[in-house]
Amino acid sequence: MAGPNLLSDGVADAQTLPSWNEGPAKQAIVRFVRDVTTAGSPTFVPPAERIAVFDNDGTLWAEQPIYFQFAFALDRVKAMAPAHSEWKTTAPFNAILSGDTKAFLASGEKGLMPVIAVTHAGMTTDEFAKAAADWLASARHPRFKKPYNELVYQPMLELLEYLRAAGFKTFIVSGGGIEFMRVFAEKTYGIPPEQIVGSTGQLEFRMGADGKPALVKLPQIDLVDDHAGKPVGIQRFIGRRPILAFGNSDGDHEMLQWTAAGTGPRFMAILHHTDADREYAYDRTSHVGKLDKALDEANARGWTVVDMKRDWIRVFPRE
Amino acid sequence: MAGPNLLSDGVADAQTLPSWNEGPAKQAIVRFVRDVTTAGSPTFVPPAERIAVFDNDGTLWAEQPIYFQFAFALDRVKAMAPAHSEWKTTAPFNAILSGDTKAFLASGEKGLMPVIAVTHAGMTTDEFAKAAADWLASARHPRFKKPYNELVYQPMLELLEYLRAAGFKTFIVSGGGIEFMRVFAEKTYGIPPEQIVGSTGQLEFRMGADGKPALVKLPQIDLVDDHAGKPVGIQRFIGRRPILAFGNSDGDHEMLQWTAAGTGPRFMAILHHTDADREYAYDRTSHVGKLDKALDEANARGWTVVDMKRDWIRVFPRE
Repeated sequence: MAGPNLLSDGVADAQTLPSWNEGPAKQAIVRFVRDVTTAGSPTFVPPAERIAVFDNDGTLWAEQPIYFQFAFALDRVKAMAPAHSEWKTTAPFNAILSGDTKAFLASGEKGLMPVIAVTHAGMTTDEFAKAAADWLASARHPRFKKPYNELVYQPMLELLEYLRAAGFKTFIVSGGGIEFMRVFAEKTYGIPPEQIVGSTGQLEFRMGADGKPALVKLPQIDLVDDHAGKPVGIQRFIGRRPILAFGNSDGDHEMLQWTAAGTGPRFMAILHHTDADREYAYDRTSHVGKLDKALDEANARGWTVVDMKRDWIRVFPRE
Repeated sequence: MAGPNLLSDGVADAQTLPSWNEGPAKQAIVRFVRDVTTAGSPTFVPPAERIAVFDNDGTLWAEQPIYFQFAFALDRVKAMAPAHSEWKTTAPFNAILSGDTKAFLASGEKGLMPVIAVTHAGMTTDEFAKAAADWLASARHPRFKKPYNELVYQPMLELLEYLRAAGFKTFIVSGGGIEFMRVFAEKTYGIPPEQIVGSTGQLEFRMGADGKPALVKLPQIDLVDDHAGKPVGIQRFIGRRPILAFGNSDGDHEMLQWTAAGTGPRFMAILHHTDADREYAYDRTSHVGKLDKALDEANARGWTVVDMKRDWIRVFPRE
């Protein structure tokens, strides 16, 4: 396998990570990759152990003003409403249908569960994948007026590719639904379905009267792959500890801690959203993607904090 | 990637699958691999979709006289017994300690659960992996007097390698415990931890007082990856339908049905244990690895049935 294009210590040529400004973040990435790929070096890591994990919402694609999968769920409720006249008087559906997204979001898990149940369950996995793909093809982001899967971060696409060229296996480890992400992740990020770890619901195998089997999505949640659920998801699905972890919120804190606690070279990074002009600026008090304790620990332990405004030449891919 | 070494229709040279006798089973394998790898052919399958799934117990390694993981659990109970004097009078531990394996096995799930709880939970994932590795290094099979992980099938090792050379990604999909298999599968089969699907227990992330995080195995079962649980495990972990499935018992029936129900070329195979001299002969009435309904369906639908006695030149690897 051709190694990445590296010059001397922490210095890459202009073709490496072209959407990243020269600076401490890019230097730290390039130095880490050089360390683990240099044969004979004490920091060398065999390719099989080069496991890199990435959060999705706010790390690989945007997450404001609401998680994109929430936008999908809300649009699904609206599309299904004509067949559910009872929703007009039932919370949280009445709030959603009257456009009061704020009231719905304020209802927390109690409001979210019935919405997940009707929009993400009671159908086969194939039917769900089609609904998600159709939505991605037609829905537009309220601010950028683009399909949601175009609001991915160009510098992160380059990083994924750079790591794979250096023999890494790249995984998503996200609080998002695993079946939702699998619809677009392979084409968008080059990450195949079997390298996606996410929140999972229970599935039921059913043999149809026609002899055709189906897998039906049930409303019961199996794993919430967020916070302490992330190391659990990593162990369950991947079965070994990553050497690189990249997140952007306190939901990634335990994944970063779990990665940091391994032996040998490690790379922990946080994307700090600091760019209200090109994207969004938020951290300690945000309702979406709150970044507080993980930022303190990153600063205290010298993890790489990527400052979007400072470190990225470009945020989204060119049209 | 170098393709497999293929001659004309269904005919391989002598270097291909050398432990397989020339015959319908080997021919069917070689023909299928040629079909899906021939660029431009209507049966061509892109490499990313070449997903092959294998049962483990009785398909990649032996499973008689009892599942090897049961032997591990029983040995663990015996090793832990000095610290548990109460087990002398408590079922099922008293049966195990007095050597009455038959009574323990007859107690079914009711007897198994407390044994799993004490031997597979209440420790960190690292501690469990060490216990399993230590056992594999020291335990010997009662009939063959060899380490259990040497009782793998040479023809299947060749098949795994043959498929990988043809661009397949090989997965284990087993009722066995995922953490148990991960201890030996990479070295033994060339299948990395992240390509192992198995039964899973719940895990808990705990931050130690020393700031070191750990994952603790809990006694609650999360997924029993057997029978209808196998398609569920495939969807949850892999996220796409295999084009090749290989099993040996009714526990693999639904996995074979799920694989068969996809579109495009498919290959479904069952290993029939017919060789009491070199290994074991069992099927419809066996307590371990019962093969009955899946054998009927295989015969009715023309799935490949591998007859161990007829089709395999060698069963286990050379010393």
